[in-house]
Amino acid sequence: MSNSLKPVLEHIEKEFDGAVSRLQTFLQIPSISTDPAFKSEVRRCAQHITDDLASIGLDAILHDTIGHPMVVATDDSAGPDAPRVLYYGHYDVQPVEPIDEWTVPPFDGAVIDGSRGKRFVARGAADDKGQLMTFVEAIRSWKKVHGSLPVRVVILLEGEEESGSESLVPFLTEHKEALQADTCIVCDTGMWDEDTPAITSRLRGLVYIEATLHGPSHDLHSGSYGGAVVNPANALAKILGQLHDDDGRILIDGFYDDVTQVSAEQVKQWNSLGDADALTLESSGAKATFGETGFSTLERLWSRPTCDVNGLFAGYTGEGAKTVIGAKATAKISCRLVAHQKPEQIEQALFAFFNERTPEGCHWDLKSFGTAPAIAVPTESPWLSAASDALTSVFPNPAVLIGTGGSIPVVGEFQEILGVDTVMVGFSLDDDLIHAPNEKFEVSCYRRGILAQAAILEAYANISS
Amino acid sequence: MSNSLKPVLEHIEKEFDGAVSRLQTFLQIPSISTDPAFKSEVRRCAQHITDDLASIGLDAILHDTIGHPMVVATDDSAGPDAPRVLYYGHYDVQPVEPIDEWTVPPFDGAVIDGSRGKRFVARGAADDKGQLMTFVEAIRSWKKVHGSLPVRVVILLEGEEESGSESLVPFLTEHKEALQADTCIVCDTGMWDEDTPAITSRLRGLVYIEATLHGPSHDLHSGSYGGAVVNPANALAKILGQLHDDDGRILIDGFYDDVTQVSAEQVKQWNSLGDADALTLESSGAKATFGETGFSTLERLWSRPTCDVNGLFAGYTGEGAKTVIGAKATAKISCRLVAHQKPEQIEQALFAFFNERTPEGCHWDLKSFGTAPAIAVPTESPWLSAASDALTSVFPNPAVLIGTGGSIPVVGEFQEILGVDTVMVGFSLDDDLIHAPNEKFEVSCYRRGILAQAAILEAYANISS
Repeated sequence: MSNSLKPVLEHIEKEFDGAVSRLQTFLQIPSISTDPAFKSEVRRCAQHITDDLASIGLDAILHDTIGHPMVVATDDSAGPDAPRVLYYGHYDVQPVEPIDEWTVPPFDGAVIDGSRGKRFVARGAADDKGQLMTFVEAIRSWKKVHGSLPVRVVILLEGEEESGSESLVPFLTEHKEALQADTCIVCDTGMWDEDTPAITSRLRGLVYIEATLHGPSHDLHSGSYGGAVVNPANALAKILGQLHDDDGRILIDGFYDDVTQVSAEQVKQWNSLGDADALTLESSGAKATFGETGFSTLERLWSRPTCDVNGLFAGYTGEGAKTVIGAKATAKISCRLVAHQKPEQIEQALFAFFNERTPEGCHWDLKSFGTAPAIAVPTESPWLSAASDALTSVFPNPAVLIGTGGSIPVVGEFQEILGVDTVMVGFSLDDDLIHAPNEKFEVSCYRRGILAQAAILEAYANISS
Repeated sequence: MSNSLKPVLEHIEKEFDGAVSRLQTFLQIPSISTDPAFKSEVRRCAQHITDDLASIGLDAILHDTIGHPMVVATDDSAGPDAPRVLYYGHYDVQPVEPIDEWTVPPFDGAVIDGSRGKRFVARGAADDKGQLMTFVEAIRSWKKVHGSLPVRVVILLEGEEESGSESLVPFLTEHKEALQADTCIVCDTGMWDEDTPAITSRLRGLVYIEATLHGPSHDLHSGSYGGAVVNPANALAKILGQLHDDDGRILIDGFYDDVTQVSAEQVKQWNSLGDADALTLESSGAKATFGETGFSTLERLWSRPTCDVNGLFAGYTGEGAKTVIGAKATAKISCRLVAHQKPEQIEQALFAFFNERTPEGCHWDLKSFGTAPAIAVPTESPWLSAASDALTSVFPNPAVLIGTGGSIPVVGEFQEILGVDTVMVGFSLDDDLIHAPNEKFEVSCYRRGILAQAAILEAYANISS
């Protein structure tokens, strides 16, 4: 460890209570980007983090967009010859439903005891406020201790990651020059386990649509009409039931055309990481694994596409019984994609799947909620090696290379628009209940995450840009 | 027309504004019996109608039950030799969702212009407050004009018709003596069209259940888990899709075992009533009829059983996108039954249908919301003939005999527990939007309904009990 890094790490440990408190304040802002009712809270959250970055000494600007604000903060104190590192995180969060299942209010910023010591329990704790604060806090301490940073830094914080990122491509295109960097760190992924840090090299892509089947012009009494007119709820269920065959294979036309199998070596390496089935069952609370016949759990998660119903509603959804035939039935459906699948093509195939099955006298309302390609990042770069070494220096176990089943569309946009490759480093755990009630982030992951980000800053200073 | 009836009919016409105003007040009480949040409003509604019946001069009592109150009102002013007539209606109403689709607030008791003149638009207008007020108002006018009624009367008003009638059987059993009658009029059915009154002789029965499929212990991120654990929303849709074959035939084991075909003569009589397809399409707003192959619309509605999904919900049901795998998925499902099907047996078969399809690692929560047998009432009784003649005397067209696709469980309970046969007379129209937003009741149907009930009272006085 260099003479520069050591006092930074000491400062992080000494001032850690302040870092915890700052994350709590950040978590108290309900920045739910999918729900128009929270628009002003999303903006308040953007202003809050802009002010915080400015207080560290960065040049921080809140940019309004057609959707939610983008926050950009830069620091060029390392001088013109130092490498420039782009950091990405998102300050927006998922909705909180079902609200009844939270043990603490989702926007209290609570820190409570858990099985691994203290944990933050709040919407956004791990996804992604707690994660982006790891590099913010590392930068804060570097600036505090040395008055400058070892590398040039540009931070981009998005407010639409959970709601389709409609402003992202226009914003990257417009601010291409200001965002130029030699490498990028996206902090929105997980570790293998609490002692084993990870760099994620494979991401699945995403297509997300909503399909509403309209039948009668209004809700009907099921006695007066049952059996004589189409019931959109029955019809939609029957159609959704045709998405998969009995082996879990997806029946959308052309769905697998561009899917390639990963190598036997790759599968072997993944399967050597540990007992993924046990981890999946434990963290999900499921009683059995499930999925496409012929693939292991990690293959299914990291290398096979999916088609999941994410939301379903029709007719009467309150308590008790109502003998109604609803006029319409809606499903929210998403496909996780793997490398080489073309998102727009899959979206069109999904729309066609429904259109080809329209019951007589019915019609569809089909909406797109955005698409993202799958990503496979280069694993031989010096940035990835340096980040891996820095992670290893802070954690008990060496860093490992993993995939993830989720999507981070921005990684593809950075490659395409800015021409910069990303190293995905993150500190969440499989049981962090991301997108679910009681989302949490371990305080120990937060602490080690900040220390690791400080070490990465120094490691990157030694790579020639 | 007798000398006694004429001044009653005149009084009804003269005082009709008062009858409209009283129904409006009744409609303003949100007596939603399925929703526990409205329990006190249901009771307030029972008290309101009890007070109204007492004000007419009936001996009216509100009886508390394990569920919602029963209202019983009697009048024996006709003397011990007069026939005794049991009247039944229900003062509870369906929920109002989706509330956004109402053009007027559902509990304002609005009277607005429609295609057939003025109409009441409110939840409960036709089902069943407007209907039960037809006999209440007829009785009010008889009492006002003559100080007594031509027959003995006992009125039973239920507050749980829309929520499973849990108190009905215990109440009928306990009050069997007080409710003894020579005949019964249930006022909760429809006419053939606005000028053609009808007596309903066939009712379908009902089984209503709720099936919740539980998978993971909590909601999951669809990226982190998609493809590796069961998604209850997908699994439930696949199972619901197996309820019917491609001919609309229900695939529940043993479902059709006790179903008998109606005679060719019966089908011919029904089909001579008019263009049921056109009426169904017009009143439902559906663009095509639909159903079991090989049967006409009236056969499907009056003589064939159904299996409808009445409610469906899983995962994220708000605006926009949420990449979630919901921990559970729920369907509310009902079967309309026909004569000879055994409700308890069908309910068990429906439960078995789900239990036999449980995905590995999942479990069901299966709830019963009550059952009712189908009914076929005797069509050769003097009560039915007298009611038919009375209806014919008030309306432009003669009364016809019809079936109905809905269920009125109380008709079976009256037969079984009280030993009394029912004449089902009602004044709603197919386009009254029962159970849907903007439920309405034509003011002209209300007026003629009251006149007809007054005529039936007199017609019944001439039948020896």
